[in-house]
Amino acid sequence: MERDEVSAVAPGQAVTEATSSWDPYARGCPSRDLLDRIGDKWAVLVLGELGNQAACRFTQLRKRLSGVSEKMLTQTLRALERDGLVLRTVYPEVPVRVEYELTPLSETLREPLKALTEWSLRHTEAVLAAREVYDARTEGPS
Amino acid sequence: MERDEVSAVAPGQAVTEATSSWDPYARGCPSRDLLDRIGDKWAVLVLGELGNQAACRFTQLRKRLSGVSEKMLTQTLRALERDGLVLRTVYPEVPVRVEYELTPLSETLREPLKALTEWSLRHTEAVLAAREVYDARTEGPS
Repeated sequence: MERDEVSAVAPGQAVTEATSSWDPYARGCPSRDLLDRIGDKWAVLVLGELGNQAACRFTQLRKRLSGVSEKMLTQTLRALERDGLVLRTVYPEVPVRVEYELTPLSETLREPLKALTEWSLRHTEAVLAAREVYDARTEGPS
Repeated sequence: MERDEVSAVAPGQAVTEATSSWDPYARGCPSRDLLDRIGDKWAVLVLGELGNQAACRFTQLRKRLSGVSEKMLTQTLRALERDGLVLRTVYPEVPVRVEYELTPLSETLREPLKALTEWSLRHTEAVLAAREVYDARTEGPS
């Protein structure tokens, strides 16, 4: 696909060529749901961290994702596993050891998520400044 | 920043170099909140569509994002405007015309979001297949 052929998703020809008939602009299309899942901040952070490690245990991830609840991390990992984006391996030791790692599928997602994360880091300052301007404007006397 | 220096976010040196002290892995860091906002599916679809158009009216967007509620689209646009990612222009006509377009800041977000959207289109099939396997396995007699 040409770089300038598709903006986010140019409907019709470009997307159709590349990806059969999925269209996140269409109600009920599973690609929309998938887009939402992979953009979830916990999913982004889990996949980002797993991309840095050979394999990770639950407690390591929980510590790394400061502030995540046990329930939220459990749900996130389970959804990622179900989507084929996280491999969960249980080692029959005492106590049982469970490790999480990327799959070949989620390896292909590393670059897009890295780009998204880096964008948010680079532009947090600008966004915070924009919010201040907006809030001052909307709360102002005009 | 070197390409292989950061996976999603390598904490410490790489991120610090590039982006001062923001860290989405840290509880309460605004970059985490920002990551969540720009990964939201409605935000991705709105920004994607605005990237395809010079400017868009609310009704056009609502039609394009099939199934989005008026309330959700309003909230999404307002949040994006507040974050400096959407420019809202009111033309004093009768009736009043309101148009939305990208800002210089969100222009820089087009590529990362395009990559994310394209990934979801390309891999919807694989993810659906993974879900079937997972569901068959977890619902099975074992």
